Amino acid sequence: MMQPLTVTGALIDGALGGVRCVDGVITQIGDGVLALPGDEQIDAGGLSLIAPLVNGHTHAAMTLLRGYGDDLALMEWLETRIWPAESRLTPENVYWGTRLAALEMIRSGTLRFWDMYFDSSEVARAVSDSGMRAYVSQLVIKAPGTPATSQPQAAEDGLLALIDTSDLVTPALGPHSIYTLSRADLEHVAALSAKHNVAIHMHLSETASEVSNCIDANKLRPVHYLDALGLVNERSVFAHSIFLDDSELAVISERGATLVTCPASNMKLASGGPFRYADARRHGCSVGIGTDGASSNNSLDLFQDIKLLSLLQKHSDGDPSVLPAREALLVASGSLAPQLGATPLAVGEPADFLLIDSASVELTPAPLAEALIYSAAGSCVDTAVVAGRVLMRGRIIDGSEEVLARAREAAETVRITN
Amino acid sequence: MMQPLTVTGALIDGALGGVRCVDGVITQIGDGVLALPGDEQIDAGGLSLIAPLVNGHTHAAMTLLRGYGDDLALMEWLETRIWPAESRLTPENVYWGTRLAALEMIRSGTLRFWDMYFDSSEVARAVSDSGMRAYVSQLVIKAPGTPATSQPQAAEDGLLALIDTSDLVTPALGPHSIYTLSRADLEHVAALSAKHNVAIHMHLSETASEVSNCIDANKLRPVHYLDALGLVNERSVFAHSIFLDDSELAVISERGATLVTCPASNMKLASGGPFRYADARRHGCSVGIGTDGASSNNSLDLFQDIKLLSLLQKHSDGDPSVLPAREALLVASGSLAPQLGATPLAVGEPADFLLIDSASVELTPAPLAEALIYSAAGSCVDTAVVAGRVLMRGRIIDGSEEVLARAREAAETVRITN
Repeated sequence: MMQPLTVTGALIDGALGGVRCVDGVITQIGDGVLALPGDEQIDAGGLSLIAPLVNGHTHAAMTLLRGYGDDLALMEWLETRIWPAESRLTPENVYWGTRLAALEMIRSGTLRFWDMYFDSSEVARAVSDSGMRAYVSQLVIKAPGTPATSQPQAAEDGLLALIDTSDLVTPALGPHSIYTLSRADLEHVAALSAKHNVAIHMHLSETASEVSNCIDANKLRPVHYLDALGLVNERSVFAHSIFLDDSELAVISERGATLVTCPASNMKLASGGPFRYADARRHGCSVGIGTDGASSNNSLDLFQDIKLLSLLQKHSDGDPSVLPAREALLVASGSLAPQLGATPLAVGEPADFLLIDSASVELTPAPLAEALIYSAAGSCVDTAVVAGRVLMRGRIIDGSEEVLARAREAAETVRITN
Repeated sequence: MMQPLTVTGALIDGALGGVRCVDGVITQIGDGVLALPGDEQIDAGGLSLIAPLVNGHTHAAMTLLRGYGDDLALMEWLETRIWPAESRLTPENVYWGTRLAALEMIRSGTLRFWDMYFDSSEVARAVSDSGMRAYVSQLVIKAPGTPATSQPQAAEDGLLALIDTSDLVTPALGPHSIYTLSRADLEHVAALSAKHNVAIHMHLSETASEVSNCIDANKLRPVHYLDALGLVNERSVFAHSIFLDDSELAVISERGATLVTCPASNMKLASGGPFRYADARRHGCSVGIGTDGASSNNSLDLFQDIKLLSLLQKHSDGDPSVLPAREALLVASGSLAPQLGATPLAVGEPADFLLIDSASVELTPAPLAEALIYSAAGSCVDTAVVAGRVLMRGRIIDGSEEVLARAREAAETVRITN
């Protein structure tokens, strides 16, 4: 049994209170919480207790490629930098790259993420060792140079290997996209998802050419094509999803699928967005936010990205009242997309939370939601707790130095130029 | 005489070196720098030494209004929140609001800024007490409720009062805009600027209606109108400047005037941008970046805003190669707009610089420029030095607690609701 954790002296919805965690679950929250003998104790000293953020789409190990070939045209970047570097990745590299990403996410308040990358078992091991939570996708992709472990015929074995890694890891299937997989491959993944009742984590409609090619080949727009293959349902999480028309938003909503917008990545790659946030919500779609990988963002700090999303939506819609702070905070915490796995701060729920320095220079004197959305960066996070275990306290994460050193070594083996 | 300051063990352009500062000026920089007896010494311990950022447009004391009425439509926001709050401002409030802004800017690597606000003498006093540098503008505005000290007839007295405040303060004139001042008032300001050889800091073409109203009233677009009044020259710094056509960009370039883009503010207020960065540079215009005030951003962290600018330009132009990291860093440090006052890191120049934690989790393993633009937030700044004086070391700024407490009190007196 884990030692219980009790936090006192925190601000919760503006009132002083605390939280007690036993066996990874919240057993008490609010005012009157006291530590019992033997509890690990934290005096929050007036820090604000909030729900952690959920990163709905990333390729965590791509931290190794951060800043490697920025500002290039898309195909030049992929062909001269990303794909050659990825061909040099080893499972060990993926492990340390994911550990580096976990450090960055913990430091910026994201305690749950959706990953899609090669060597999923190494990703799962890194998640478990970091103490964070993740939906780890078994990548399924057919493209030149991609390893055998990512081919469709390996998908079930890869998925089964993820099961029972750790309570922190939820296995998922990661069919890369409609342009890297055949109809038969996608149907195979849909069948596996149903058979094992696991989530699908997939790129969707990130570029205009992806959509036009799909229409040319299948006489259907991407969402209708995927729907015909059984891939649009309450287990589906679609990243990017820029070029959806109203008929596709309606299908997403009816089927209970989830859209994850990646504003920084789409803007940096000039994908042509914006994501149709207001339309998606009007249709009743579940919406989350993701950073994408550190090659195309190049940050895993969702506090920065949620501001970007709110600003981009106001800019695009020509309306400063669009996606206000309190709603944006719900997007960032995964509260507008139940399938992303966020849990509320309530008795009986997982003991996952942050302590935020809401009295810092940068956040003074704004109300909390507005401060977090429009003024904060990830550095406002002081303490991070997952399943009642303290991963960061006073911005210190045990073992950071080793992870940094090993990730630097790994990066050197995959990057040829700088 | 000030005690000399010597920094050793810093990374400068990737090589280990140091800097020695005597009487506020750099006397030695690079390898082989050693402290002499009696010097104040800093061992940088491998931190990267870089030039500070320049905030080309802000209203510093508006930190007091941070998060006050976010997400409202523009006129509702101004009429129900900003203007009533500003009517309750006292000179003392402006002082503490500016001190709070100075803390935030120092903490995020901005050591020189262009301010425009009421009670310029209090702004100047706050700048001087903070140890930062600023171009402090004597505000000139005619609008309902604006104080006598901001009327055109008070401009020269206000300007003269700014002179000799401190070596850290450069006096300027801040004619608010073409829509809050008459032709005669603007001509008066132009004459004062020439007479005293001081900069003009002015809003320009922030909204489409500002442009169409100017054309209706004067048969000229704003830049041509201001040019006819003698207000477009090498002393002019124009903030926002979204809606400029090619003929206006040509005039700005020919006259040697400076454009300052405020991407976060324009997007948050849905002003309709983007700023025409690539066109402005092709015309040869000087370009800088500003945060705008903390009401419409709501952050003074230029490291976040320069990423936003780069992403917005790529998104708008549909080209991921636009405004690459190294060029963006020049924009942020004021190096593409000489009139903004930035000085190089060189012998004989002012001893203003930052020490950056370029080995942090968030910046690993990217090259420095790419890391600073695409991965950093202001929290990467460890140490800030102005005129050879250490303003922040290890993220500690002496006196922060008092400034925070007094700014909170000031905010309470101007905000009626939250």
